[in-house]
Amino acid sequence: MQDSAVLLIDCPDRRGLVARVSSLLYEQGANILHADQHRDEALGLFFMRVEWALDGTAGGGTRFDLERFQQAFEPLATELEMRWTLTASAHRTRVALFCSRTLHCVADLLQRWHSGELRCEIPVIVSNHRDVEGLAGFYGIEFVHVPTRPEARAEAEAGQLAILAGHGVELVVLARYMQVLSAEFVARYPAQIINVHHSFLPAFTGARPYHAAHGRGVKLIGATSHYVTEVLDDGPIIEQDVARISHRDQVEDLVARGRDLERVVLSRAVRWHLERRILSYGNKTVVFD
Amino acid sequence: MQDSAVLLIDCPDRRGLVARVSSLLYEQGANILHADQHRDEALGLFFMRVEWALDGTAGGGTRFDLERFQQAFEPLATELEMRWTLTASAHRTRVALFCSRTLHCVADLLQRWHSGELRCEIPVIVSNHRDVEGLAGFYGIEFVHVPTRPEARAEAEAGQLAILAGHGVELVVLARYMQVLSAEFVARYPAQIINVHHSFLPAFTGARPYHAAHGRGVKLIGATSHYVTEVLDDGPIIEQDVARISHRDQVEDLVARGRDLERVVLSRAVRWHLERRILSYGNKTVVFD
Amino acid sequence: MQDSAVLLIDCPDRRGLVARVSSLLYEQGANILHADQHRDEALGLFFMRVEWALDGTAGGGTRFDLERFQQAFEPLATELEMRWTLTASAHRTRVALFCSRTLHCVADLLQRWHSGELRCEIPVIVSNHRDVEGLAGFYGIEFVHVPTRPEARAEAEAGQLAILAGHGVELVVLARYMQVLSAEFVARYPAQIINVHHSFLPAFTGARPYHAAHGRGVKLIGATSHYVTEVLDDGPIIEQDVARISHRDQVEDLVARGRDLERVVLSRAVRWHLERRILSYGNKTVVFD
Amino acid sequence: MQDSAVLLIDCPDRRGLVARVSSLLYEQGANILHADQHRDEALGLFFMRVEWALDGTAGGGTRFDLERFQQAFEPLATELEMRWTLTASAHRTRVALFCSRTLHCVADLLQRWHSGELRCEIPVIVSNHRDVEGLAGFYGIEFVHVPTRPEARAEAEAGQLAILAGHGVELVVLARYMQVLSAEFVARYPAQIINVHHSFLPAFTGARPYHAAHGRGVKLIGATSHYVTEVLDDGPIIEQDVARISHRDQVEDLVARGRDLERVVLSRAVRWHLERRILSYGNKTVVFD
Repeated sequence: MQDSAVLLIDCPDRRGLVARVSSLLYEQGANILHADQHRDEALGLFFMRVEWALDGTAGGGTRFDLERFQQAFEPLATELEMRWTLTASAHRTRVALFCSRTLHCVADLLQRWHSGELRCEIPVIVSNHRDVEGLAGFYGIEFVHVPTRPEARAEAEAGQLAILAGHGVELVVLARYMQVLSAEFVARYPAQIINVHHSFLPAFTGARPYHAAHGRGVKLIGATSHYVTEVLDDGPIIEQDVARISHRDQVEDLVARGRDLERVVLSRAVRWHLERRILSYGNKTVVFD
Repeated sequence: MQDSAVLLIDCPDRRGLVARVSSLLYEQGANILHADQHRDEALGLFFMRVEWALDGTAGGGTRFDLERFQQAFEPLATELEMRWTLTASAHRTRVALFCSRTLHCVADLLQRWHSGELRCEIPVIVSNHRDVEGLAGFYGIEFVHVPTRPEARAEAEAGQLAILAGHGVELVVLARYMQVLSAEFVARYPAQIINVHHSFLPAFTGARPYHAAHGRGVKLIGATSHYVTEVLDDGPIIEQDVARISHRDQVEDLVARGRDLERVVLSRAVRWHLERRILSYGNKTVVFD
Repeated sequence: MQDSAVLLIDCPDRRGLVARVSSLLYEQGANILHADQHRDEALGLFFMRVEWALDGTAGGGTRFDLERFQQAFEPLATELEMRWTLTASAHRTRVALFCSRTLHCVADLLQRWHSGELRCEIPVIVSNHRDVEGLAGFYGIEFVHVPTRPEARAEAEAGQLAILAGHGVELVVLARYMQVLSAEFVARYPAQIINVHHSFLPAFTGARPYHAAHGRGVKLIGATSHYVTEVLDDGPIIEQDVARISHRDQVEDLVARGRDLERVVLSRAVRWHLERRILSYGNKTVVFD
Repeated sequence: MQDSAVLLIDCPDRRGLVARVSSLLYEQGANILHADQHRDEALGLFFMRVEWALDGTAGGGTRFDLERFQQAFEPLATELEMRWTLTASAHRTRVALFCSRTLHCVADLLQRWHSGELRCEIPVIVSNHRDVEGLAGFYGIEFVHVPTRPEARAEAEAGQLAILAGHGVELVVLARYMQVLSAEFVARYPAQIINVHHSFLPAFTGARPYHAAHGRGVKLIGATSHYVTEVLDDGPIIEQDVARISHRDQVEDLVARGRDLERVVLSRAVRWHLERRILSYGNKTVVFD
C-alpha cells in the first residue's frame, strides 16, 4: 500500500474551493493520487476527498511535510468554515467488534482483517454471549464478555465504554450485535459506529422480518449498512445490496441469502470508513469510490 | 411458438396430486413440455403448471383432444377442490392499456407487442390525457380519452368499465396510470389488473418519493409490478428489480433509472401473465419461470 | 436543464493540473456545478470533466463569457498538451440511427428522445431494410433506405457517408445494425460510433451466440455498448449489464432478456456521450458519472 | 432440518415419466415436499428431483421405508434407462477442501460449515502450502501438507488420492487451489470436484486476468463455480455472479471484489451439491432451486 495522506473536507459551498485547496497542495509539492468532489446543491454544501503521496516518488526524493501542510491549511480551513480530517495511511484505525450469537459477520471481518484486506487494528471483541470467544482466541484478539439485561443497560454500557476508552477505539462495528445502544452511547461515537441490518421491499417492521418477507412473497431481499444514530436501524446509509429470490425459497433460504448480503455490505462499509472514503452529513453519506 | 395448452392449478395440498394429474395427462396422450409444482407449506396449498403439445409431433400425428381432456379432468378437479384454468396458446388475451402523461411504459409495451414479444391483442388504450393518442394511432389501436376528476370518479369508471366490457378485455395494464381505481372497479378484475410503481429501501410514502430517496441518500432504487387489490400500491408482487445509484446521481437521474426499471418489471409481469405463469393467492404470487 | 458548459480534458499527468484548471475557472468567475478527475497511473494520463453554469445565477447576474474563457484556456491547453472539448449544453448533438430489421433498440432510443430523456437531434435514420420506415415517419424523422450487399459495401458506405455529412451528423448509433462497417468508415468517426452487442461468460464467437450460451448452460447473459473501432465488436467499452438466467430459460427467453439488456446499455451509452461524460483512450473509457 | 430423502434422476425423455415416478411414490406413501422436473428438448433428456419426508408426519406415524422403495424403484429405473441417486438427508457428504495460499474461500466455507449452513463433514484440508494449517486446527480438522512440484505431480496426486480414499471423501472443493489436476485425477471424481475462478467480459486468458480486465476497462467482473473436467477452468457451470466496477477501481479493488464473488459462488455451488440440487450432463448443469 502506498504511503499517502487523505484530506476529507466538508464546508459551505462557494466559488473557488477546488482552486484554493488544489493550489495549496500544489505549492506544497503534493503529488495527488486521487481527488474527488461533490456538491449537495439543495443544501449548499461542498465535499472533497484528496489523497496524495507522502514519499518522494514524484519529486526530488524528499518526503512531503505533513505538519507544514497542516499549518498552512488551517487558516484556509477556518476562513472557509471547513470540517476536515487529515489522516496518514500509516495510521491504523483502532476498531472494536461487537457481536452476539450469530457469527457470520464477525468471522468474515476477522478473515478480511487477517488477510490484510481491512487495514486496521482490532484490539477487542465485545459480546453479550460467549460464542465468539474461540474465534477471538484464534485470531489473538482480546475478548470481553459483557452480559446485558434490559434493566441494567446503563451498567453494561458503562462497562463497554470503559473498554472502548481503554483500547483507544475509534470505530465500533456492530457485527450482528442484537442490543440497542442508548442515545448517550451513540452520542459518544458520532459517525463512528457502523451497523448492518436486513432490508426489504416493502419494509417490514415486526419481529420476524424474513418471515414477513416470505409471507408477502417479495422477489428481492436486501441488506443495508449505516452509521448508527439515535434512531434504531436508521442513520446515514453507507451501502446496500440485494439478491433475487423466488417462491421456491423458504424462510431459511432467505436468511442464508441475507447473511451473504450482510457480510458484503458490512465489510464494504468498514473498508470505506477505514480508507476515509465516507462523509456523513444530515441523514446521508457521500461515499467517494 | 408451439401449439400448446397450459393448465394452472391451485388446491389444498394432499398426497398424490402430481401422480393423479400427470397420470391423467399420460392416459390422454399428452406430450408434456414443461411442468412445475409448488407447495406453500405454511398454508397447506399446492400449485401446479403443466404445459403440453396440442399438435401431434410426438405421437401418431393426431391432435390432442382438449375438450375430451377437460371432460375427464373436471371430476378430478372437483374432487380435489381445485381452482384451475386451461388455456390454449392459440388464445390471445385481450389487453387494455391505461396510461396518463408519462409514456415510457406504454411505449415500451407497444413496441414489445408489435415485435411479437408480447403475444396478446391490445384492442384499446384508455387515458385521462391525450398524450398517448398519436402513439395509439401509429400502432392502429383505438384510443379513448376518459377525463377524470376526483368528484366524478364513479362516472369515469363506469365509462371505462363499459369500454373494457365492449372490447372483451381480460387484462388491464396500468402503465403509469396516475389515478386510483375504486374497490368496485378492482373487484371486477381480480388478479387481472397489473400495476407498476417505484420502490425504495427504506420505503417512502410521501408525494415525491424520488426526492425523498435522494434526500435520504439511498444507494439502490427499485420498481415493483403487482396485481392491483383494493389497497393502493399493495397487492401480490409479481416482479421487482433494482439499480445501484450514488451520491453523484441527482433526482432526475434517479427518475431516469426508475423509468428503466419500470419498463422492465412491468413488461415481464405482463408477459408472465399472458403465458399463464402466475398464480396469485392471498397477498403473494407463485411465478413459474 | 441548466444552461451550462462542459470541459473535457485528457493530457499527460503532471503536478498541479487541477490547481491550474480550477484557478483559471475561478478567475473567470465560473460557478462549478460538477467536477471530476481521474488518473491512469499505468499510462501516466490525466482526465478531467468540469461543468459550470453559464447563466448568472451565482454572481452579479452577468452571463459567463465562454469565448473569453476559451481564449484564456487555449495557451494553457497547449502548454500542458491537452486534448480537450468545450461544449455548451444548448448545443444539441446531431445523431444518426442505423438499424436493420430488429427494432427494439431503435424504438427505445426514439421514445427516450421523444420524452426528452436524450437531449439531441435525430435528423436521420438509415437502414438496409424498410422495417423502421413507419416508426421514423411517426416521429417525423427522415428515413433513408441504403440496401447493402457484400460485393457493394464501398458503394453503400459512400452513400451513408454522404447522408451523414449532409445532415452534419456528429454521432452514429448502431442500434442493432447488422452490417460490419469498413475501417475507412470507422476512421471517419473516431469515438463517434456507438454499438451494442450481447456478451457472455464464457465468450462465444460463433454465429448463434444465444444458442451457444444455452448449450453451455451459462447462468448469466449480458450486453455491452462500446465505441466502434476497426475490430468488430471490440473497441472501448462504455457500459455493460447482465441478467440472471436458469436452465428453465429457453433460447428465446435468453434472446428476450438480451434485448432488455441491449436497450438499457445502449441508451445509457448514448446519454453519457451526449452529456460529454465519456473520455475514450487506447482501448478503454473513463465514464464520469 | 427435515428428515427426508432426495431422488435425483436423469434419463431419455419419454411420455409418462412424471406419472410413473410420482405414482410409485404415491403408492409407497411418500409425502412429497418438493418436486421439480426439466426437459432438455434439444438432447431429448429428462431430469427430475423429488424430495419427500421420511418421518411419519403426514400419515399414520410410521416411517417411510426407503429400502422397500428402492427395491420397487429399481426395475422402473432399469426399464426407463435412468441414472439416479437416492440420498437420505441424514447422510452427511464427506468433503475435502483443497487450497493454496489465498484463504478467503476456505475460511468462508469453514465458517459456513461451522455455523451449520453447509451440512456436511469436512474430515480433511489439503494444501501445497502451510498457510491454512492454523485455521484447520481452530476448526479441529486434519490438515495435510502435500507439496507440489511440476516434475512430481503424479507423486503428489497419488498422495492426495490416498488421503481422499482414506477419508472416504465424496466431494473435493478446490477453494483457490492453484494447481492443475491431471485428467486421471479428475476422472476418479466425476462431477465431484468443484472449482471457482474469476470470469470477465470479454474473457482474458493470460496469466494476470485482473490486470487484463483493468487494462481493458471492463465495467463488470465476475466469478464462476463449476465442476472440474479435464479442460482447465471449463466444465459444467454451476453458478455465476458479477459486480459492477468503474474506472475508479484499481486492480486491487477488482481483486477484492473478485474475492467477494468467489466466496459467494463457490459456497452456493457446494451447498447445492450437498443438497443434491445439481444434475450435470454434457457440459452443462441443471440446478433445481
